[in-house]
This record gives sequence, structure tokens and C-alpha cells, in this order.
Amino acid sequence: MSYFDAASAAPLHPVARQALLAALDDGWADPSRLYREGRKARMLLDAAREAAAEAVGCRADELSFTPSGTRAVHTGIAGALAGRRRTGRHLIVSAVEHSSVLHSAEVFEAEGGQVTRVPVSRQGAVDAGSYEAAMRPDTALACLQSANHEVGTVQPVAAVAEVCRAAGVPLLVDAAQSLGWGRVEGDWSVLTASAHKWGGPSGVGLLVVRKGVRFAAQGASDERESGRAPGFENLPAIVAAAASLRAVRAEAEQEAVRLRELTARIRARVPESVPDVEVVGDAELRLPGIVTFSCLYVDGETLLHELDREGFSVSSGSSCTSSTLTPSHVLKAMGVLSEGNVRVSLPAGAAEAEVERFLAVLPGVVAGVREKLGAPAPVAAVHEDVLVVDALGKRCPIPVIELAKVIGTVPVGGRVRVLSDDEAARLDIPAWCEMRGQEYEGEEKAEKGTAYLVRRAT
Amino acid sequence: MSYFDAASAAPLHPVARQALLAALDDGWADPSRLYREGRKARMLLDAAREAAAEAVGCRADELSFTPSGTRAVHTGIAGALAGRRRTGRHLIVSAVEHSSVLHSAEVFEAEGGQVTRVPVSRQGAVDAGSYEAAMRPDTALACLQSANHEVGTVQPVAAVAEVCRAAGVPLLVDAAQSLGWGRVEGDWSVLTASAHKWGGPSGVGLLVVRKGVRFAAQGASDERESGRAPGFENLPAIVAAAASLRAVRAEAEQEAVRLRELTARIRARVPESVPDVEVVGDAELRLPGIVTFSCLYVDGETLLHELDREGFSVSSGSSCTSSTLTPSHVLKAMGVLSEGNVRVSLPAGAAEAEVERFLAVLPGVVAGVREKLGAPAPVAAVHEDVLVVDALGKRCPIPVIELAKVIGTVPVGGRVRVLSDDEAARLDIPAWCEMRGQEYEGEEKAEKGTAYLVRRAT
Repeated sequence: MSYFDAASAAPLHPVARQALLAALDDGWADPSRLYREGRKARMLLDAAREAAAEAVGCRADELSFTPSGTRAVHTGIAGALAGRRRTGRHLIVSAVEHSSVLHSAEVFEAEGGQVTRVPVSRQGAVDAGSYEAAMRPDTALACLQSANHEVGTVQPVAAVAEVCRAAGVPLLVDAAQSLGWGRVEGDWSVLTASAHKWGGPSGVGLLVVRKGVRFAAQGASDERESGRAPGFENLPAIVAAAASLRAVRAEAEQEAVRLRELTARIRARVPESVPDVEVVGDAELRLPGIVTFSCLYVDGETLLHELDREGFSVSSGSSCTSSTLTPSHVLKAMGVLSEGNVRVSLPAGAAEAEVERFLAVLPGVVAGVREKLGAPAPVAAVHEDVLVVDALGKRCPIPVIELAKVIGTVPVGGRVRVLSDDEAARLDIPAWCEMRGQEYEGEEKAEKGTAYLVRRAT
Repeated sequence: MSYFDAASAAPLHPVARQALLAALDDGWADPSRLYREGRKARMLLDAAREAAAEAVGCRADELSFTPSGTRAVHTGIAGALAGRRRTGRHLIVSAVEHSSVLHSAEVFEAEGGQVTRVPVSRQGAVDAGSYEAAMRPDTALACLQSANHEVGTVQPVAAVAEVCRAAGVPLLVDAAQSLGWGRVEGDWSVLTASAHKWGGPSGVGLLVVRKGVRFAAQGASDERESGRAPGFENLPAIVAAAASLRAVRAEAEQEAVRLRELTARIRARVPESVPDVEVVGDAELRLPGIVTFSCLYVDGETLLHELDREGFSVSSGSSCTSSTLTPSHVLKAMGVLSEGNVRVSLPAGAAEAEVERFLAVLPGVVAGVREKLGAPAPVAAVHEDVLVVDALGKRCPIPVIELAKVIGTVPVGGRVRVLSDDEAARLDIPAWCEMRGQEYEGEEKAEKGTAYLVRRAT
């Protein structure tokens, strides 16, 4: 079995396991109590906070432990927005943030706030200028991930932080994907992270609020964790989280080199061995362990299922919307193909031999899925100069498959009109044109569904 | 070492430890994923939910796992109030609820809601009639603990639930202290609990919302746990929580008999061996393991410190306000003595010999603290018919000590006027009068601090 979905949750690091076991004995009591067991628990909690703060690069009293990375984001965004309510009610996020950030933004909008979603390049990166352009006098907060969770692209946090600093706006950095690899550079104001992404246990997130940042935690609270995370501390897990963060950091530099080489192999060899594949995300400015590609004429769920049968656990599309059938908001924002999407995220220690086995198995698996989806004969008719493909009622990737089959039958300069009522076609037909050098001319409302117009260019 | 503070946090049950270890291996992946590791995690999560629901007496799809009992209460109250916003903005709680309930009520008040705090008897119990009287046409929710966390008194949940049902108002029951002992009877609507109170790990609470109860979770959410507890599930801990709940329930009946006998011993023998003690809480309708008493002329913190030196870990005053210096809101609402307060809460398996050792050690410890606090000669002067005791600038329990010293020096029918600027005197002087059969005549603003007037009755 090869688990290649570390960006969802990394397996428990041996140091985390060891620390958790030790802390189960000494860390079950209430750290706010004055008796022996309470004092022991308090010492463990203090030591964990010191260790985590050192890894983040902040003061211990700036760091609160939360029950998850998601809770850290929800609390961090709501608290930072409330702290600057007098300044205004405008929030800036990138279009490719984790769903926890986007959900917080939606709640803020529902309460009357305004949100600007900064677009990204085809590689998935924002640029600092777009953040600068999005700034308004009433901007209360900006949010940016340190690196994207779906495609691995590293964001220009330090440059965006400078822009924010100049505008007097705090920057919240969601560092969930990168904190195990190193500190987040730049002059950020609020930082969030999640322990189970670096090999710590589940049940622990970090929320760091720099001194001087206006912050007003919302909802009911208590005296624990600086009033930012109410409820009894999840102490054994906190101890394990801090210990494993220190451990993965010690191994990070060397392991990053190794994983970077393995993902570079996947980036290079998948397009060689599998036809009609688009590798997405920045080739250079990327996390060491993540590589994402999309396969034309394949649906992601079937592909995942077949890879699982071969012993590979990978992810597809947006990591947090995979239970819904909407295409990944990240791939959509990047304007790349979303069909047949696979994210490989290697955990620390991933074996080279398993990566090689994956590369060996993948072409056959993709070919098998393509064959299974097969080729329902396209219903095509020429109206005026346009070949019409009726893909109504057919789900992704069928509309694109049918488009690909007929494009060669019209002359260069001729047009194909694809009728589809599957929402994913809106994303995938333009992406296919981009990949194939065909010209996408746009969409229009059809009698049923939507008509996508493609002009044969080559 | 004897840990007698199970009402704060119980040591980890061996079954919890065992289940946690097993789940660390099989339960670290994302249960919403479709690959092998995700399916394993999903099976563990489903099985834990079934087991917990069976112990609660609800359907599995009514139960969400939260990061703590406190989070369950915060989410439960906010969600139930929002779900009935159209009915009105009135909330009923008892005066002796856990701080998490009271904090939620304060937030609700700050947002414009109205809160009725139902008083309790001197034994700490509410009565159903008071809830009935508190009902209004705009009442959105009523809250009641299953049993009190400080004094162990069991509340008449079933009767209050009937009153609520008749009024068409949902009842939220905070079952944190009792769920390990048995199901909460009665027709409640929402229930909350906390795993580390029954010997489960920290990091897990339960939130149960009965089908048909209007509920609108507030703030950002995601697709996990019915939208009521966002963030990656703390799965190994959830598995351990469910397994240990089942285990403690299997032992509950027998262990309850044993602990009840041990706490009955404390209830009976402390007043025999320690002078000037008031045992508080209901003598019959109480949890098996909790017994609380207050010692005149002693301050709780010193007493706890001395007991800790003797190897006993106990608690004092309110479990969640012990870091502040205000007297427990529970003891205050009961109108009993708060000074020198000790809560003994025996964990399952507490050794009889250790309880006997506690009973043997306590009289000397209390006597020692009393001697240490000693007797600063009261500055007394007779003004008209009143003996004035100037205890300004002196902290609890000194004002009461000085009152007790001089009461015998005025004739029956004569008065003592105690000047004090310590807030605790407001609670403890009336309580002392009640204990001693003296007449408390009330307080008035003095030039400095407050004057408390006591008439010698016996």
C-alpha cells in the first residue's frame, strides 16, 4: 500500500506517537489546577507552546492551540475582522484558499461584509500587485495561504505582507501545507496551521496572533488559550504536535530535496507516458511533496478508485469538496483542466520504489478508464458551417471526449458547437482548447443547457 | 498520591488508552476519503458514533463529536437559539450551570437576548415549577445540567423536560458530570457531554440534537459532523471516547454503590472530626463520587495547597473560575458558605484506604491552616449599642474570623457591625449567621467598604 495523500493528513510521525504515549500518563489533568497532576500538565503545556512558538518564529504568548487547523482559521478570520470593525468590513482572500478560509469569507458576506477574491495565474500563484490593487480604505483583513493545498504552488507571502503592511492591513497566513517544511517568512500578522498535516495527531491546530494586532475572539470563550480557544486543552495531542513539529523540521531540509526529486520525476514522466495529460501548478515555486495533473477523457472518481485497487491512495480535485460533485475551485481559478484530476502528495519517507511503481502503473490505469468510458458515438449534425455535438444529459468527461472526436472532421477554421448541461464542461472545454491549441470562442445559452463554441485552429 | 478531582478530569480509563493506541494505527486518515485508509477511518468513526449514540440513547445521526464539552455547549446553545430566533430571544438557565453555559448566556445577552437565571434550593437543586414560572411566549431555549459539577446535586431533568415540552420549548441538558453513570432520562431536545469526565481522552465532546429540533449552527462550518463541528475529526480520541464510555457504563452500577458509600462516609465524618464545617449539596439526590464541604475560618487556596502536600488532589469553589478570586457562583446561588471550600470527586476505582487516609489527615490540616491564619486581634470599638469590627483591607476568611471572635462579647440582642472591603464577606457573613443561628440584618454602604450588621440571637 502506498499512501500518497499527505496533503490531506500525514501518517503519525513516530515522535508524535512516542510523545503522545508519554503525555497520556502525565498530561490528562487540568493544567489550570494547582495540585501535582495539574502542575505536571501545565509544564507539558508550557513546554509544548515554547517548542511550537520556536518553530513558528513567534513569542509563546502569541500562540494558542486550537482543536484543528480549520478552527484556527475560523477563529482567526472572525477575530481579526471583529478587531478591525471600525476600519471597515472588507476582506481580501485569494481565489485558491482552503475551504475553511472561503467558508469564513462566505459567513462574513452573509453578515454584510464585502469580499474581494484575488485571481491567480495559470500556475496557481497570486501576485502582490493584485493584493495592492484590491486594497480599499475599509479593508479590515487580507488572507493568503503560504502554499496551495491542491497544486503545491508556493505563494509570495513576504511580498504580499509588505503590501499589507504598507496599507496598514493585517495579513492572515494559512500555513497548513508548509509549516512542517519551514517558517513562514515575511511580516505577517496572524498565522494558522494544522498538526496532522506535518505528522502530528489530529485534534490540534495553531493560531498565532502577533502582539499589537487588533483581535476580538467571537462567541463564547473562557480563560484558556488567551481566550481564543475555549474548552479543556487536548493536552496529550498538543504535546505530540509540538514534539513532531520539531522532529519533522530537523529532517525537513534533507527530506525536501529527496521528495522534490521524486515529484519532479512525476512531473516529467507522466506527460511522457500518459497521452493528453496536463501537469498543473508551478514547476519551480512549489512544495516538495505535491504534484497534480489532469487527464483528459477520464473522470476523477473512477481514476481514484482504480488507483486504490492498485494500492495507491491519492486525492482528486479540491481536497475539501471531494464529497460534492462540483469541480475544484482551485483548478477553476487557475483555468486548467479539472477532469481526471489527480493530486499526489508524498508523505515524508515516501519510498522511491513506490513512486516508480506508480509511474509504471498509471498509464495502464488511465488507458483502462478511458476505454471503459469508451466512445458513445457522437450525435453530430452540420448546421450551416457548424458541427453540432449534442452531449446533453452526459456527464464529464463525455462532452470533451465527443468534442475531441469530431474536431478533426471539420476543416481548419470550421466550428464545433457542443451542447452540454454538465457544469464541468464550462471549465473543461476551454481548458481542452488551451491544451490543444484550438480556439475557444465562448458559450451561449442554448434551448437546453449551454452551447460551447470551438473553432478549429490547427 | 490520591487524585480526588475526577469532576475536573478523570484519569484515562485503560480501555480508552488501548482503543486510542489501536486507532492511532488505523484512524489517522481523512474519513471522507474514498481510498483504503480513508474507508478504515470512516468505519472507526461510524462505529464510535453508533456506540456513543447507544450509550446516550439517541440515533447515530443525531450525535456529533465536538472538540470538547465546552464547544458542544457553545455550539448547542448558539445553534438552538438561532434555530428559534423567530419565536423570540429569551433563554432560561439555572443559576448553577457550568461556566460554558453561563458564558454562552452572557454572549447572548450582549447580542440583545434576555436571560432568566432560575434560582436553586440550599441543596443546589432547581425545581420544575421555577422553570414553568420562567417560561415566556418568546422563550427560545431552556438549559439545565443533569447534575451539578461542584456539589454533585442531581437535577430534576425529566420533570423540567416535561414543563419545557408542554411549553413547546426545547431543553438543552449539559450531561457532562453524569453521562458516565447512565443515560439522561426525560424528553430532552439537545444534550452535551465531555469525554474526559468519564475517563475518555481530552479533545472529545458530544453534541446530540434530536430530530425535529430546530437548529442552525452559527459561524463558519463544513461538511463534517452534520455541519455542527467543523474541522478534521479527532478520530483516535473519538474512538477512545466511545470505547471508554461503553466500558465505564458496564462498571457503573457496581462502582456507583461503592463510591456512594465512600462519599457518604466523608459526608458523615468530616463534620464530626472538623469543627465549623458545612457539608453542602443534596444528601440523597447526588452523584456517587462528589462531596463538597466548606470550612469556616479557612481560605480555600491554602487548604488545597496543604492537602496537596499531604498527597491529595482536590478542588475548591467553582471548577472553572478557580483561577479568579471570585467566590464560586454555585455556592453563592445556594446561599451556603464559600470559604474554605473543598470538593472531593472520587474517580472510578478510588481506593477506600485513601479515603480513610483523607479523613484522618483533614482535621489536622484544617486546624493547621486555621492556626496559621491565626487571630489578628480585632480592632473593635463600641459605638452606641453596636460593636464595630474593622476588617478593612483584610481578605476572606479574616472578616468572619473576627466576627466570630467578638460575637460572644456582646449581649444577646446586641449587634456587631463588620466593616469589610472583601467581596467574599457579602456571601460568607450571612452564611456564617445561618450556620450559627445568629441573625443577619443586612449590609449598608460604609465610608470605606461595606458594613455588615449582625444581631446576636443566641
